Amino acid sequence: MDRLDKLEAIEAIKALKARYFRTMDTKDWAGLEAVFAPDLIADFRLATGQFDETQLTHGAAPYVAKMAPMLQDVSTVHHGHMAEIAILAPDSATGIWAMEDKLWPQAGSQLPFRMLHGYGHYHERYVRLDGEWRIAEIKLTRLRVDVQ
Amino acid sequence: MDRLDKLEAIEAIKALKARYFRTMDTKDWAGLEAVFAPDLIADFRLATGQFDETQLTHGAAPYVAKMAPMLQDVSTVHHGHMAEIAILAPDSATGIWAMEDKLWPQAGSQLPFRMLHGYGHYHERYVRLDGEWRIAEIKLTRLRVDVQ
Amino acid sequence: MDRLDKLEAIEAIKALKARYFRTMDTKDWAGLEAVFAPDLIADFRLATGQFDETQLTHGAAPYVAKMAPMLQDVSTVHHGHMAEIAILAPDSATGIWAMEDKLWPQAGSQLPFRMLHGYGHYHERYVRLDGEWRIAEIKLTRLRVDVQ
Repeated sequence: MDRLDKLEAIEAIKALKARYFRTMDTKDWAGLEAVFAPDLIADFRLATGQFDETQLTHGAAPYVAKMAPMLQDVSTVHHGHMAEIAILAPDSATGIWAMEDKLWPQAGSQLPFRMLHGYGHYHERYVRLDGEWRIAEIKLTRLRVDVQ
Repeated sequence: MDRLDKLEAIEAIKALKARYFRTMDTKDWAGLEAVFAPDLIADFRLATGQFDETQLTHGAAPYVAKMAPMLQDVSTVHHGHMAEIAILAPDSATGIWAMEDKLWPQAGSQLPFRMLHGYGHYHERYVRLDGEWRIAEIKLTRLRVDVQ
Repeated sequence: MDRLDKLEAIEAIKALKARYFRTMDTKDWAGLEAVFAPDLIADFRLATGQFDETQLTHGAAPYVAKMAPMLQDVSTVHHGHMAEIAILAPDSATGIWAMEDKLWPQAGSQLPFRMLHGYGHYHERYVRLDGEWRIAEIKLTRLRVDVQ
C-alpha cells in the first residue's frame, strides 16, 4: 500500500462516514445498513452508561432493524467533525470523530424526553470488503448529554 | 485525470466550500461572489417550500446582490460538515454537505423571526474555470428549521 | 516538495487540529501541549476584546499551564469545521478553521456566566518539527458570543 493508496483510503472513509450521518438523518435505512460491514459491532455502553446487551449489537442488519423503528418518528440531526483516520493495512483502518446529535421525538413518542442534545466522539474500525470501505465497529463516548 | 489529480480536486473543492461559509458569515460579499461560477444556479425552493422564482436565482452577481442586503444586518453562522465529493471529469464535480445555520436579525429587522436555526444538506455541482474550482449549482434541502 | 507531499501535509494538519479539539475537551492536557510547537503564540486578543498580555501567551507549556486549571472544572465542547490549509514550504503552513465552542462551568465556578456559546474562526500557522506538524500560532476571531 503506497502513499497515494493511503490518501485515497482516508478520503473514502471520510465519505463513508458522511453517508452514515446523511442516511441516518434522512431515514434511508437501506443506505444506512450499506455503510456497515455485515458483522458490525455497535457499542453504545459507554455512551449510555448501560452496560448490558441492549447497548451492544452484533450485525449490521440487527442494528438497523433496532434503530429504524426507534428513530422513524424522531427528528434527528447528527453532525460529525474533525477526523483522525489511521490506515493500518490495505483493508483495515481506525478513526475517531467528534460528534454532536440532536433528537426531537414527535408528539406521542415513548422516549422520555422532549429533546436530547449530545456531544462526544465516535471511535471506529473500518474494513474494506470487495474494494468498499465499511464501518466494522462503532463505539460512542460522550462529553455531555443535555435533555429537556 | 489521474488519481492524484482527483485527490487535489477534492481538497480544492473542500477549501472552496470553506470560503463560501467564511465569506458569507464575515459579510465579504466580493469574496462570496468569487466562489461561484458566473452562471450560478441557486435553488432554495425545496428548503423554503416556496416553489417560485424568488427561491431560484440565476447568476452569481444577481444572487449575491440579493443576499447581501438581506444578510447585511443579520448576524449569521453557517457551518458545513461531512463532504461527499465526486469528481466526474477534469472540470466537473458534485458534492453533498451537511449544514447548520443560525440567523439572528438585528433589532428593527423586517425578518419575521427573532432567531432561525436550520439543518440540512447542500447538494452542489462544481466546475473548474481557468484552473479554479467554482460552485456552479447550489441546492438546499432541510432536515428541520426552528424559529423563535 | 511535490504534490503528494502537500496532500499528505494537509491531511496531517487536519488530524493535528482534530487532536487539539479532542484533547482539550477530554482534558488530556499533556496531549494538548503535544499539538503545539514549544514556542507557540496563542493570541485571543481579538476574540476577547482585551488587548493586554493576559490574552497573548508565548510558549506551549505556559499556555497549557494557564488553560488547564481554568477549564478543569468546566464542561467544554469545541467543534471545528471547514479547513482552508495552505502549505507554504516543506515545514511551514497556514490554516483557517470555522469553530464553535460551548462552556458550562460547574457549580461554584468563578467564571461570570452559566453557559457560553461562541462562534468564530481560528487563524493558524503550523510548523513541522522532527517530521511532526505542530500548531505554532493560534489566533481566534469571533463572529458572535452568547452568554447566559
